[in-house]
This record gives sequence, C-alpha cells and structure tokens, in this order.
Amino acid sequence: MPTQPSKELERIPNPKPERDYEIEITTNEFTCVCPRTGQPDFATITIRYVPDQWIVELKSLKLYLWSYRNEGHYHEEVTNTILDDLVRTLEPRRMTVIADFNIRGGLHTVVTARYERTAEGPARLAAD
Amino acid sequence: MPTQPSKELERIPNPKPERDYEIEITTNEFTCVCPRTGQPDFATITIRYVPDQWIVELKSLKLYLWSYRNEGHYHEEVTNTILDDLVRTLEPRRMTVIADFNIRGGLHTVVTARYERTAEGPARLAAD
Amino acid sequence: MPTQPSKELERIPNPKPERDYEIEITTNEFTCVCPRTGQPDFATITIRYVPDQWIVELKSLKLYLWSYRNEGHYHEEVTNTILDDLVRTLEPRRMTVIADFNIRGGLHTVVTARYERTAEGPARLAAD
Amino acid sequence: MPTQPSKELERIPNPKPERDYEIEITTNEFTCVCPRTGQPDFATITIRYVPDQWIVELKSLKLYLWSYRNEGHYHEEVTNTILDDLVRTLEPRRMTVIADFNIRGGLHTVVTARYERTAEGPARLAAD
Amino acid sequence: MPTQPSKELERIPNPKPERDYEIEITTNEFTCVCPRTGQPDFATITIRYVPDQWIVELKSLKLYLWSYRNEGHYHEEVTNTILDDLVRTLEPRRMTVIADFNIRGGLHTVVTARYERTAEGPARLAAD
Amino acid sequence: MPTQPSKELERIPNPKPERDYEIEITTNEFTCVCPRTGQPDFATITIRYVPDQWIVELKSLKLYLWSYRNEGHYHEEVTNTILDDLVRTLEPRRMTVIADFNIRGGLHTVVTARYERTAEGPARLAAD
Amino acid sequence: MPTQPSKELERIPNPKPERDYEIEITTNEFTCVCPRTGQPDFATITIRYVPDQWIVELKSLKLYLWSYRNEGHYHEEVTNTILDDLVRTLEPRRMTVIADFNIRGGLHTVVTARYERTAEGPARLAAD
Amino acid sequence: MPTQPSKELERIPNPKPERDYEIEITTNEFTCVCPRTGQPDFATITIRYVPDQWIVELKSLKLYLWSYRNEGHYHEEVTNTILDDLVRTLEPRRMTVIADFNIRGGLHTVVTARYERTAEGPARLAAD
Amino acid sequence: MPTQPSKELERIPNPKPERDYEIEITTNEFTCVCPRTGQPDFATITIRYVPDQWIVELKSLKLYLWSYRNEGHYHEEVTNTILDDLVRTLEPRRMTVIADFNIRGGLHTVVTARYERTAEGPARLAAD
Amino acid sequence: MPTQPSKELERIPNPKPERDYEIEITTNEFTCVCPRTGQPDFATITIRYVPDQWIVELKSLKLYLWSYRNEGHYHEEVTNTILDDLVRTLEPRRMTVIADFNIRGGLHTVVTARYERTAEGPARLAAD
Ligand SMILES: [Ca+2]
Ligand SMILES: [Ca+2]
Ligand SMILES: [Ca+2]
Ligand SMILES: [Ca+2]
Ligand SMILES: [Ca+2]
Ligand SMILES: [Ca+2]
Ligand SMILES: [Ca+2]
Ligand SMILES: [Ca+2]
Ligand SMILES: [Ca+2]
Ligand SMILES: [Ca+2]
Ligand SMILES: [Ca+2]
Ligand SMILES: [Ca+2]
Ligand SMILES: [Ca+2]
Ligand SMILES: [Ca+2]
Ligand SMILES: [Ca+2]
Ligand SMILES: [Ca+2]
Repeated sequence: MPTQPSKELERIPNPKPERDYEIEITTNEFTCVCPRTGQPDFATITIRYVPDQWIVELKSLKLYLWSYRNEGHYHEEVTNTILDDLVRTLEPRRMTVIADFNIRGGLHTVVTARYERTAEGPARLAAD
Repeated sequence: MPTQPSKELERIPNPKPERDYEIEITTNEFTCVCPRTGQPDFATITIRYVPDQWIVELKSLKLYLWSYRNEGHYHEEVTNTILDDLVRTLEPRRMTVIADFNIRGGLHTVVTARYERTAEGPARLAAD
Repeated sequence: MPTQPSKELERIPNPKPERDYEIEITTNEFTCVCPRTGQPDFATITIRYVPDQWIVELKSLKLYLWSYRNEGHYHEEVTNTILDDLVRTLEPRRMTVIADFNIRGGLHTVVTARYERTAEGPARLAAD
Repeated sequence: MPTQPSKELERIPNPKPERDYEIEITTNEFTCVCPRTGQPDFATITIRYVPDQWIVELKSLKLYLWSYRNEGHYHEEVTNTILDDLVRTLEPRRMTVIADFNIRGGLHTVVTARYERTAEGPARLAAD
Repeated sequence: MPTQPSKELERIPNPKPERDYEIEITTNEFTCVCPRTGQPDFATITIRYVPDQWIVELKSLKLYLWSYRNEGHYHEEVTNTILDDLVRTLEPRRMTVIADFNIRGGLHTVVTARYERTAEGPARLAAD
Repeated sequence: MPTQPSKELERIPNPKPERDYEIEITTNEFTCVCPRTGQPDFATITIRYVPDQWIVELKSLKLYLWSYRNEGHYHEEVTNTILDDLVRTLEPRRMTVIADFNIRGGLHTVVTARYERTAEGPARLAAD
Repeated sequence: MPTQPSKELERIPNPKPERDYEIEITTNEFTCVCPRTGQPDFATITIRYVPDQWIVELKSLKLYLWSYRNEGHYHEEVTNTILDDLVRTLEPRRMTVIADFNIRGGLHTVVTARYERTAEGPARLAAD
Repeated sequence: MPTQPSKELERIPNPKPERDYEIEITTNEFTCVCPRTGQPDFATITIRYVPDQWIVELKSLKLYLWSYRNEGHYHEEVTNTILDDLVRTLEPRRMTVIADFNIRGGLHTVVTARYERTAEGPARLAAD
Repeated sequence: MPTQPSKELERIPNPKPERDYEIEITTNEFTCVCPRTGQPDFATITIRYVPDQWIVELKSLKLYLWSYRNEGHYHEEVTNTILDDLVRTLEPRRMTVIADFNIRGGLHTVVTARYERTAEGPARLAAD
Repeated sequence: MPTQPSKELERIPNPKPERDYEIEITTNEFTCVCPRTGQPDFATITIRYVPDQWIVELKSLKLYLWSYRNEGHYHEEVTNTILDDLVRTLEPRRMTVIADFNIRGGLHTVVTARYERTAEGPARLAAD
C-alpha cells in the first residue's frame, strides 16, 4: 500500500522526559504553491525542539510536510502553521521552525517562528 | 502594464500577530549612485524584523529597493533611510537593516541599523 | 589479542581538576541499526565535557562507541544513553553529547543532550 | 491568466548563430515522483548547450520543468527524456543535461547525458 | 519482511542504450572491517559508469554495499572487488569506482579503479 | 568633470606582444534591464583574453560596462555583444566573455562566448 | 594632484545621530614594517563602530591607513594606535579595531582592541 | 648561532596596559609524542589572552612550543601545562589555550583551557 | 615493543596487477628540519601511484615518513628523495609525490615530482 | 645586518635535474604602486616552474618581490617583468607567473604569463 501525504502528525513517547535535550530535523524537500501566481515555491525547513512527553514519529513528519505539495501558502503563514500543528501534537517545552525559501523576484526570504511553553502571553522571540 | 520602481511600500496583515516570529529578506540586487563621484554603488541588503500587525508585501519591497537605482546616497545614510521607511510603514516590534557594500578604494563597508519599539529614547544597538 | 567492542568505559585521573577546562571529542565513525527497518544508520558524534576528577580513556571510548555497531537504537534514545553512560563513569561538571545522523526519508536529524551537575532537577537545556 | 505547466518548449532565434557559444541554465527547483514508491524526488538540473539557429525561451523552459511535478520517472530515464525534448526543439550543436538527485536509501545519484550533432552514431560521451 | 544485505546485484534495462550517458552514485555509508586489526573502517564510495544494456537497480546496490559490514577487506582489494562485481553484472561501456577511506595512522587513502570495455588488455587508467 | 558611462572602449599598447599571456578581468557590478519586463537584471562578467598588440584600458572598460545600466538586453545577446565590441577594439589572439546572471524564475543562467583569431570560420567553442 | 598618505583623519556629520547603528569597514590592504627585522608586515584591518556625532570620511581613512606603509610598528601597539587615533577624531559611542596579521615564524596573530565611551576606567573587553 | 627550542618564555611590556584588548596567536606547527605509543602527535594551538602589564615575545613563544617536539604528553595535560606556563610568565587578565589534535583512533580531540584572574577559586569556564 | 621510525619501506603484492588503478595517500603529519636555520618545517604529503606488482604497506609508510622528523632537508630535494625511495621499492607504473610546505618568509611552496616507467629518458612532467 | 630588498635573484643547483618536477611558490605579500594614481596596489603572486639546472633561492626571491614596494607598475607589465627576470636567472624548462590583483574600480584583474623553452617562437599559452 503506497504511503500517502497526510496532515496526521504521529507522536511516540519521549525516551528521556526527565532531561531537557534538543532534536533538530532539517529537510530541503519542502514545496508548496504560491497563492498569488499558482507557481511552485521551494524551501528548506528546520525544526528544533526540546520535547516534553512526546517526540515526533519521523515517517509521519515526512508525510505531513508532503501534504503541502499542491496547497497555496504564503511564506509567513505556512511557517507559523507548521509550528502550530507540531506544538498542538507534541506539546514540547520549546520549539523553533525555520523556513528558508528560494529566491523570488530577487528576494530571498527566511521565516523563523518560536514557541516556548513557559511564556503565558504571546511567545517572546528569544534573542537569537 | 510593466511594473515601475516606487517609494510606495505596501503592507498586508500579519497572519500570526499573537506570536513574535522573525522574517529575514535578503537581496544582492541593490544599486544606487555615489553622490561624490556619480558612479554606481552595489550592495547586498538584509532586512530582519519581528512584525506586529503588518508584514511587508514582497513585490512592493522589490519596487521600493529598485527606486534607489539612479539616486545619490552615502552608505550610512541610505541604510538608515531604508530602515526608517520600513519602520514607518510596518511599525514592527523589532527590525534590523544591514547594507553590505562592494569594495571602494580598497575598503569594504557594512552598515547595520536597528530599531526596537520598546526603547523610548534612541534605540540602543543590541550587542550582536 | 585483537581489541573487542565493549560497554566498559575506562577513566583516568583528571590532570588538572582544580581548573574548569573543556574536552571536545568528535568522530564520524558511529554506526548502529534502525530498530524498525533493521538497516544501518550512520552519525557523527560530538562529546563536549568539563571534567571533574576523571577524564575518559580514549581507547576505551572507541571500543564503547564500536559496541553499538549491531544494536537497534532510535536517534533520540541512543544520544541520551551515551550521555548517561559517560556521566555515570566520569561524573563530569558539565557534558554535552551531539549525534548528527545521516539523512533518512529526506530528513536530517541532530540530537543534542546536555547534563549539568549543579542543576538538582532535570537539567535545564542552556539556551543555545 | 495564471501560467500552467506545459510540455510545450518554445524557442527564439539565436542572436549570434555564426559563433559557437555556450549557455548554462541551472535550477534546484525540479521535483517529480518515484514510480516505485509514489514519493516525491528532488533534483538540481543543469542544462549546458551550444545553440545553432535556436535558443530556448526561458519562461517556457520553467513551465516545461514544472510539468514533471506529479509524473512518475526514474532518475536515468527522465534525464535522457529532458535531453531528447530539448534537442528535438532546439537542434543544438551540443547539449548536456545533468540531474543531481537528492539522497535516497543513503545513495546520491547524478545522471549526465550528452548529445553532439556531429556524431552519426550514438553520441560518444566526451571524457569529463 | 525486513531487507537483508546481499551480494546479489540486480540490473534493469537501460532506458536509453543508444546514447552514452553517465550515472554517478555516491554514498558515505560504507563500512567494513580491517583484516589486520579487526577494527571497523569507514569510506565514501563513488561509482561512475556509462551503461550499455543494463543499469544497476539502486535498492540492490544498497544491500550489496551493506554486505561488506562485517567482512575483512584491505582498501586496495575491496575497491577492485566492488568494480569487478558491478562490471560482471552490468557489462558497462566504462566504469570507475572510488573508495575514499577515513584516516588511519595519520594516513588518508583514496583508491580509484577504472574499467573500459574497449581496451583488450588490462584497462589503461585514463589520466585524471 | 564627473566620469560618464560610454561605449568608447580605449586600448593601450601591449607591453609584451612577443609573448602569449592571459589577462582575466572579473566584476560583479554589471546590471542592465530585461527587455520583456523592464526590470533590472544583475550579472557577474568575466573577460579572459590573450592580447596581441593591444590591451584594454581598465577605466574605459568600467565606463563601457556601466553604459548598459539602463539598456534592454537578453542574456545571450548581451554576452556576444560585449565580446564583439572588445574583439573589434583589441583584436586579441583569443578572448572569452562569461556572463553569470542572477536567478530569474528559479533559473540561473550563465552564457560563455569565445573568439579565436586563428579559426577562419565561426569560432569553434574550445571544449571546456 | 596625486593623493598623499596622511595621518589627518577627516570626519563628516553622522546622518542619524539619534540612532545607535553600526558601521563596519574592512581592508586587506594594510602593510607596515617590522621594527626588529625591517621587513614588511601585512594585515587585514576591521573597524567596527557605533558613531555619535561623527562618521569617518572614507577617502581620508584610506590615506591614513596608507601612512603606515614605511613605518616600524609591533602588532599589539599599532592596533591600539589606530583605535586611539580614530576614537580621538570620531568620539564614537563604541569602537572595535581588529588587526589580523600574516603568518610570521609559523605564528598567526590577531589583535582586537575595543573602546566604550560609557566605561570611565579602562574599557572592559566585552566578552566575545 | 642557530636558535634552540627553550622552555624560557620571554615577555615585553604591554604597550597599552590601560586598555583591555585581546591578542590571538594561532599555529598549526605543534607536535609532541604520545606517552603510550611513542608516536608523534600533531595539533593546532590557539592562544587568546587579554594582557595586563606584559605581552609574550613571539620568537620566544615559537621556541617554547618547539620544546615539546620530542616530549611525551597527553592531550588534556599538555593544554593545561601550556596555559600554566604562559599565565605564570605573563600574569594576564584572561587567557584561553585551545589545542586541536589530529585524529587518532577515529577520534578528533580539542582541549580548551581558560584562566581568569578575577576568579579567586579555580577559574570558572565561561560559557562558550 | 614500541614502533620506531625507519627508512625500511615494506611492500605487499598488488591484489589486482592486471588492472591499472590508482592509490592516493595523504598525510598532514610530515615534519623535518630546515638545513639552513635548524628550525622545524611542516608539510602535507600526497602520494598518488598506479601500482604494478607491489603496493606499499601503510604502517611501514608511516614509519618511513616519521624517519625525517629530525633530518635536515630542502623542500625540492626531500620531495624527490621520497619519490625515489618509493619508486625503488614499489617499481610502480606511475607515481606522483606532492609536498605542500607551510609558509616561510611569506612564501608558500609546493613541490610536485612525477615518475613514469614508460618514459625512457628523464620522466616528462605530464601537463597538470 | 638587516636584509634589504634587491633585484638580485640568486639560484642554487637543482638537486634532481634528470627529472621534470614542478615547484609552486605563492605569496599574498606583493605590493607596488599604480603609475597613474600613485596609490598602492596589492596582489597574490603564484610562480610555478619546472627547473632545469637551477632552482631559485627562496630568501633572494622574497627580497626580489620586496623590491617592487615603491615602484610604479601596471598589472600586465609587472607580471611579464617578473617572469622575464626569473627566466633569465633560472633558465627553467617551463614557468608560469600569475598575478591576482586586488579589486580597483570594481574590476578584479588576474594576469597569467607562461614561458616554455622548447617553443622557438613566442611561447604559446597552453590552454588552461
Ligand atoms: Ca538565510
Ligand atoms: Ca561583510
Ligand atoms: Ca557587525
Ligand atoms: Ca546540523
Ligand atoms: Ca553530485
Ligand atoms: Ca561526472
Ligand atoms: Ca580524498
Ligand atoms: Ca555557474
Ligand atoms: Ca584569524
Ligand atoms: Ca577573538
Ligand atoms: Ca575542532
Ligand atoms: Ca566548545
Ligand atoms: Ca586521484
Ligand atoms: Ca598549495
Ligand atoms: Ca601544477
Ligand atoms: Ca581570480
């Protein structure tokens, strides 16, 4: 049964919840469509997070990122959407999503969105 | 109707105002003229900002940067002018503009200007 | 007598316990097996620590890393296991283990686990 | 009218047919699907050719490469197909197509196909 | 049924036998054992060939390279063995195998073996 | 009197005409306009030549390249035009002009045009 | 009238004194003489400062750096001298001068001197 | 009279004691012997310090590093010994010695030792 | 019994004499002494050869290179001596020795010596 | 007696005249003056030659290159002058001098001059 793209992110128990450790996942295989022109966009996505009880199951992450292939998204919006979906599923202590998009109109855009559980109000962007 | 360079920066609503996230836009296609010699100058411009209610519309940013093509500007002045124009239009939480100019007279100049809304007085330059 | 892989980490006295100094050991020769598919995984391991009374004996470290060659381990788990084993043997003041795994399914994963003796509760991950 | 992917390669007259000169076009925005697994593949495509009477119209080349987005192709086959299509349309003096595919199963594949008009029989691959 | 390492190289028909084109496959996931010390060796293998009627099926190539994991081989011998096995299976027009081994005893060794069908006697090594 | 862009290439006597030696001049400060969209294009130009009786006077070369700033040119055409102008002025033994244009529509284009005096007919493009 | 090297640093008004922004100027064209051996020394100089009322006039900076060409200076001394001269002329809020000297006797030396107006006593070296 | 390796570190007066400035000296010409195997070890040494009244005389530093050529030292010990010798001679405000050793047994070791005068007890290792 | 440096190069049978294949061995751990000043010199040595009946035994090569540690040699002479010793022992079909010496007096020297058995007279240096 | 710059190139006997071997010497410490503006120029010089009976004595080469420090030279002329002086002194079989000059007026110039004894007439510039 060939695998299918899916919005369903799966999670598995964190093998070491008693420690704050960081997982960084990078892929240069993200592509979606520009809502304005309908033409393909390409980006390198980096996900860095400190898990709490759950870590992301890698195969489901691949299918989730694949699910954007034919959807229309703006750079800023899709970076935050990916962060929100992952935060909702994993409830991590901290997480950063970076989307580094290919050049369009001579402009190279990188969007960096962060989430930190401790911050009650809108998450402050920790100084880089 | 071919597009025209324009000082008119356009903005669109921030899709995620409740979160502090960072947008970095880079282009190596900035050129203006040296007021002293009248000869062309070339630079790589990097714009890094944390939006509040507004994000910059990329096409208008391209036309805005293009508008400097035949204008006379000194390195230090033009970097601050670009930052001021963008801050006036977007009212971001934080913004940095870096202009990395080609070598002239054996000297390679990079100007970095920062704006932070919280600082009442002249913005302190956050340590790099 | 040819050497054998071994879980036995050996330690030798720290030549300068009265000073906080850092030892960084890197190897791109780590390989184990994926528990799900049974296929080989490859990683670059970096160990950075501030020793207290003991430093790791390098030859035994090589045999210890070799001992994973035919064992099934997930990325997140094995990084923490290596950190735990080294911490148990050396009782360092601080230690970081970074495991940078080869690309699988288009995804490149790096796991970073830290230990700090002073922190009573689960070690806080110092902001990068 | 939003543009559409299309197999229709367009050509425009060579501005300097009396000279042998070389055009190299590179894009890291090629994606198609693996016929076996149905999963996306990604590649950087380089096209190097010495035109005769015709050169490729760049916009049509973009739409042509886009047309592979949801098609199933093996690495070796698709590189030759792209070369054949371009050769049929442009009838160049010489042309090389290089497809540098992302890592799959730990293997990184690059396919290089060459065409030379003068060679009557199957084109000899000039030593690299 | 989990896959198994295997000496069985599989081949599939060349989609374009009438053209000389080159396929380059690289992996940094090759490991075998040093016959003298019994300790693991690591290498990056590059395979470059111009196919005739057959091209190598990539999954079988991965299992074939995996089959060396626990075998004792010297650098020079194993590079030629891999070339011989591939030549016997694919009967290519030309093929090069490069094995770039990790540093041992301060020495970094790269072995490059070439096969050319046209050469009757022992294949001449084309000048690099 | 501020300098002005000018199509007037100036030449000075070759200090060593009895020897074949090569001069390579590179600049990343070339910009012209796209005839189709009217928008700026940017390129790095490399000029490599073996002079006969004349070498190019560098200041005039700078003013000559500057003269393209507001002119509409296609990549392929302008590379050959620059080569023709330089050949007409310097009558070199050999000359190559390479124009490496910024990415447009995801495509990165490099045009390489060569001239060789000895070839009576249209210059053969020497293998790279 | 050909320009002359000169110790006379010129300054022009800061176009944006109300903002803390940073100017970085780099040149790999600094050369002076070793007082001990009389032989030439070469260095790359980087000047990074936050201007107050004045910014340095670039042409005069070039002539000032040129003035060291035939003077005898030790690495440590000349780095501080350049910083002192610039601070005396520009009275900046902060300034750093880095001198990265070519290898002598197998040793590669980099001297970094900082000035901060707010610090009353000898300027503390801000942690890198 | 040919120079001789010597443990005698010489110092000369700091030309600018009233300022905290940093001197970084790097050499890839350090070699000593492994006490266990008797075989040569090679390292790149970096010395970074903020001088107080004294700076190191470079020639004597070269002869001092040369003095290790035939001595048996372990990585961790020799890095601290070099730091101690330099601190005893120069009494600097701060000093760091980094020894980056060549790969042995597949392991690449870097030792970083710091000294800070202000800290009464054993110097705390400033977070990287 | 600790190993000793030795001029005794050992050879073992070529596993594949019927094929021309190339072996490249590189080490950055070569050091000898300058005959004029008595001070240490450091170099990276690259040995590239096509074996006939014999290949070099790597451990003996390490001990052979180690034997130069305290000997006085000029760059040009020692490169040819190493080539002669290896050629005498291995009688290869072709061999190149490259010695890339550290900077001395601002000059960085690389010596490349080649041997080719077929050339009766003094080996012609094949164009790079 | 401090050393002095000097046009006097010294030569010493080639230790291996019966073999064609190559010596490459590089320095980034060449500086002279621009005849037109009187301002300093900087270049990296590479000298590659196959010696016959003589090799250049390195110290004298350093003093020879130093002798250009205050002389006015154009890029093309000085590269050929250096080649002529070295050829006159060493009478090598082949020699190449490459002068890679710093950017002036946005233009980066590299001059490559070759000499080959066998060619009776003016040396042909072998295609690179
Ligand atoms: Ca970026
Ligand atoms: Ca810069
Ligand atoms: Ca900065
Ligand atoms: Ca990483
Ligand atoms: Ca590749
Ligand atoms: Ca290839
Ligand atoms: Ca290699
Ligand atoms: Ca290119
Ligand atoms: Ca440095
Ligand atoms: Ca520093
Ligand atoms: Ca390191
Ligand atoms: Ca560290
Ligand atoms: Ca090779
Ligand atoms: Ca070199
Ligand atoms: Ca060469
Ligand atoms: Ca160059």
